[in-house]
Amino acid sequence: MGWGDLGAFGEPSKETPNLDQMAAEGMLFLDFYTASPLCSPSRAALLTGRLPVRNGFYTTNGHARNAYTPQDIVGGIPDSELLLPELLKKAGYTNKIIGKWHLGHRPQFHPLRHGFDEWFGSPNCHFGPYNSTERPNIPVYRDWDMAGRYYEDFKINLKTGESNLTQLYLQEALDFISKQQASQQPFFLYWAIDATHAPVYASKQFLGTSQRGLYGDAVREIDDSVGRILKHLQQLGISENTFVFFTSDNGAALISAPKQGGSNGPFLCGKQTTFEGGMREPAIAWWPGHIPAGGVSHQLGSVMDLFSTSLSLAGLQPPSDRQIDGIDLLPVILQGKLIDRPIFYYRGNELMAVRAGLYKAHFWTWSNSWEEHSKGIDFCPGQSVAGVTTHTQEEHTYLPLLFHLGRDPGEKYPLSFASEEYQQAVQHISGLVQQHRATLVPGQPQLNVCDQAVMNWAPPGCEKLGKCLKAPESDPKKCSWPH
Amino acid sequence: MGWGDLGAFGEPSKETPNLDQMAAEGMLFLDFYTASPLCSPSRAALLTGRLPVRNGFYTTNGHARNAYTPQDIVGGIPDSELLLPELLKKAGYTNKIIGKWHLGHRPQFHPLRHGFDEWFGSPNCHFGPYNSTERPNIPVYRDWDMAGRYYEDFKINLKTGESNLTQLYLQEALDFISKQQASQQPFFLYWAIDATHAPVYASKQFLGTSQRGLYGDAVREIDDSVGRILKHLQQLGISENTFVFFTSDNGAALISAPKQGGSNGPFLCGKQTTFEGGMREPAIAWWPGHIPAGGVSHQLGSVMDLFSTSLSLAGLQPPSDRQIDGIDLLPVILQGKLIDRPIFYYRGNELMAVRAGLYKAHFWTWSNSWEEHSKGIDFCPGQSVAGVTTHTQEEHTYLPLLFHLGRDPGEKYPLSFASEEYQQAVQHISGLVQQHRATLVPGQPQLNVCDQAVMNWAPPGCEKLGKCLKAPESDPKKCSWPH
Repeated sequence: MGWGDLGAFGEPSKETPNLDQMAAEGMLFLDFYTASPLCSPSRAALLTGRLPVRNGFYTTNGHARNAYTPQDIVGGIPDSELLLPELLKKAGYTNKIIGKWHLGHRPQFHPLRHGFDEWFGSPNCHFGPYNSTERPNIPVYRDWDMAGRYYEDFKINLKTGESNLTQLYLQEALDFISKQQASQQPFFLYWAIDATHAPVYASKQFLGTSQRGLYGDAVREIDDSVGRILKHLQQLGISENTFVFFTSDNGAALISAPKQGGSNGPFLCGKQTTFEGGMREPAIAWWPGHIPAGGVSHQLGSVMDLFSTSLSLAGLQPPSDRQIDGIDLLPVILQGKLIDRPIFYYRGNELMAVRAGLYKAHFWTWSNSWEEHSKGIDFCPGQSVAGVTTHTQEEHTYLPLLFHLGRDPGEKYPLSFASEEYQQAVQHISGLVQQHRATLVPGQPQLNVCDQAVMNWAPPGCEKLGKCLKAPESDPKKCSWPH
Repeated sequence: MGWGDLGAFGEPSKETPNLDQMAAEGMLFLDFYTASPLCSPSRAALLTGRLPVRNGFYTTNGHARNAYTPQDIVGGIPDSELLLPELLKKAGYTNKIIGKWHLGHRPQFHPLRHGFDEWFGSPNCHFGPYNSTERPNIPVYRDWDMAGRYYEDFKINLKTGESNLTQLYLQEALDFISKQQASQQPFFLYWAIDATHAPVYASKQFLGTSQRGLYGDAVREIDDSVGRILKHLQQLGISENTFVFFTSDNGAALISAPKQGGSNGPFLCGKQTTFEGGMREPAIAWWPGHIPAGGVSHQLGSVMDLFSTSLSLAGLQPPSDRQIDGIDLLPVILQGKLIDRPIFYYRGNELMAVRAGLYKAHFWTWSNSWEEHSKGIDFCPGQSVAGVTTHTQEEHTYLPLLFHLGRDPGEKYPLSFASEEYQQAVQHISGLVQQHRATLVPGQPQLNVCDQAVMNWAPPGCEKLGKCLKAPESDPKKCSWPH
C-alpha cells in the first residue's frame, strides 16, 4: 500500500472512512518510512528494529538489488537476531502473527521458533496457482503445522479477484483479541495480512464497491477490517489499554497499476525504488485516552521504531549488545516531541539516500535497467525526471543529488551544487553517513542462495492432510535479482 | 492554487489548519473543476455561470489556445453578459469584489459597471515592476478610481518575496463584513485575492514559516486569512446566515515550481492544460447549522455552479434567455444528493475533453509546443505519458483517449479501444457532446485583439495622484497566444 492510498492522505476517492477516523482519533504520521522498498527486508526490520543490512535481509549477489524470500530462498531470519515477540515474552505477552511471515520458510525460520506463540498465515506471498510439480502452492499454517495451501484449500479466484482471505485473517484477529481479553493476558498481535499485494483480491461483499477497481476493493476491505478491530477493542473495554499502529511495508507497486497497483500520492516512483514513492508510508497511531485526537506528526519515523516503541510500552529495554536502528516514538506520540534522526534508504547492500530534516541526499540513483524497462517493467510509470529516475546505476557519492522535500516532495528539482544551502545540507548529511558507517557491521546476507529443494514441498503437517510433495534434488545457486 | 495544496487534500506538509477545519465543519468537494485551465476565462465563467466559449473569454487567433486579459487586451466582459452581482442586486445584496477582477480593464469593463458596488483591487495580475514608458504598473482601484499602482504604492519585493497585499485584502474583507452586518444588509463578497499567483509574495509575518518555501508561506497566509474571515462571521453572529465557498481558478502552475509553484496532488500536469492537474480544484463549502459537518461530496462540480447556487440561496432564478452551464448545488450540499452532469474541458475555442461519471474522454491532447518545451516551458515537469502529454496538438475526435479516473486518477492508462467498457463509455460521452454542441452559440471572442494604447496608462483618478501616463498611438494587433 502506498502513502496516497488513504483518504486521510489525499486519495481522491476518499474511500477509507475507518482509517480516516482512526487518524482523527489518533495521530497521523506524514513522514514515516519503511526500512526497504521491498516486503521481506522491511518486515524483518520491523521485527528486529534493525536495518536489513544488519539483520541479514539483503543480497550481495549484485549491487543495490532488491531481494526477498521467494519459495526457493535458502536463507531466513538468523537465530542471532532478537525479534520483538521474543523480547515481549519476558513481560508476559502472548504473541500472535496473522498473515504473511516472509522471514524464511525453512524449519529453523518458523515464527514460533522466533518468539511468536501462535500463527495463522503463510510464509510467502500468495503467488500462484502452481502445478505442484515444478513448484508447490504456498502453505497456510495454523501454528506449527500446515492447514492447507493457497488456491487449493484457501481459494483465490484470479479471474474474478474473489478471495475471503482478509475475512479469515480478520476473524482470526477478533478471536485472538477476545481470548486474550477473557484470560486477562497482555498480547502482541502482528496483523500482517498480505492484501493489497498482487494478485489483488477482495471478498465477495467488497468486490466492485470501490471507485478504484479491484485494488480499491481490497483497500476498502482492509479499511473495514481495521475499523472492526478497533471497534472490537472498544467493545471489550480494552481500547485505552491497547496501542495500535497502522502502516505498510513498502510503497504502492506502480508496476501493477492501474488494475492492481495503488497510489503514492504526490511522490516519485513506487515499490522497488528509494524515491519517496517507494518508502514513504501511510502511518497512524491510535490509543484512545493517551494519544490526543487529531494529532499530526512530522517526526521522521520508521517501521523499525515500532520495535523500540513496543518495547517501551511493555516497560522493556531494547537489547544493548547490538545496534538498534529504531527509536522509541512515545515522546513523539504522547508529548508531541520531535526527535532529530536521519532516515537511511537502502536498496540491498547499498545506502542509496539519506534524509535529514527536510533534505534528502541521493548517493545512488536507479529505477531499473534499460533492459527490464524496455520489457515494460516500469517502477515510475508516467514519471521521468532527467538524471534522477535513471535506468543505469548512477553514483553521486562525491556530489549527492540533494532535494528539499518541503518545497519539492516529488524529487524533481535537485538543488544547485553551488548553493550555500546545498553545501550546508550535504555537509551535515555527510557527517551522519560517516557516523552511520562507523557503527555498521553488515549481517551475513540471507538472500543470496536459492535452491528449489527448499521450496514448500512438504511443510510440517502435510502428512495429515495428504499434501506432501516430493522435493527435487538440492541444487543451490546464486539467486538472480534483476533490480 | 492546486488540488493538492491543502492538508485536507493530502499536501504532505499539512500546513493549512484553517482550511482543513473549514472542511471538517463543512463539505469537501473532491471532484470540483474550473471552467478553464487559466485565470481570466475561469473567473468570467464563475461570475456569468457560463462557459468561456459562450461568454466570450476565449480566442480564435489559434486553435485551442489559452488566453487571458493582459494589460494590452482590448476585450473584456461584454455588456450582454449578466453577472452574478447584477442579479443579486435585485434581491437587495450589496456586492463587493476584493482583489483581482481580470475581466477587462477598459472603462466599459469596470466591475462597478457590472453589478459590483465596491471594489478594492486590481484589474490584472501583479506582474511587474514596469518602467512606466513601455508599460505602466498595474493600478489598484478603490471603487471607481485608482488608489495607486503595484510596486509603486503597493509594494511587492521580488527579492525577499515580501508584500502585505493579502493582509490589505483581508482587512478590507473584515471591514466590509462588519459594515454589512452593522447595517443589516445582505452581501456578496467576492474575495478574489491574487496570491498565490507568481510572482509569489507573503507578508513579513508569514515569510519563512512554511516547509514549502515562499509558495507555502503564501498558502499559509491565505489559510490564516480564511480562518480569520470565518471567525469574524462567527463573532458577528452571522455564520449561520452566510454561505462561504473556497476554491481556485486553475490548477497549480507547475511551470513556476518548485519555488513559486504549488501541487496538483496525484493528478497529471498543471495550469494551462486540460489534464486533471490543470482544472481539478480544492473546494470547500461552509455554512454552519446548514451543511452537516465533515461532509464529503463526489459531485462533479464547477466554478460556474457558484453562480447558480448563489442565485438559489438568494431566492433568485437564473436568466432564462441564455444557456447557463452552472447548476444549483444546494441539493448536493444540503441533502447529499448527486446530480448527473458532465464536465467540459475547454482550451480556448476547443472542447478538449469531457468527463461523465468516472470516465474522461480526451478529444484533443496537448501540453505545449516542442518549440516552447525546448525553451524550458514545461506544464508537466517530471511527468510524461506517451501519447497523452503530447507536444503537438493531437486529435482523437474519432477515437477518444478514455481514462477511468477512479482507477487511474493520474491519466496514465488509456482504456483499450476494443473493450466493451470503452465502447459504452465513449458512446455515452458522444451523446453528451452532441447535446452540448447543439446548444452552443459561441460568444464574440474577447481575447483576440491587443493594443498597447489600451494599457493602464491613465486610469480614472490618476490626475489626483499625479500618476497619469501618456498612452502611445493605438496599434491594434492580433494577440499572440503561444499555448
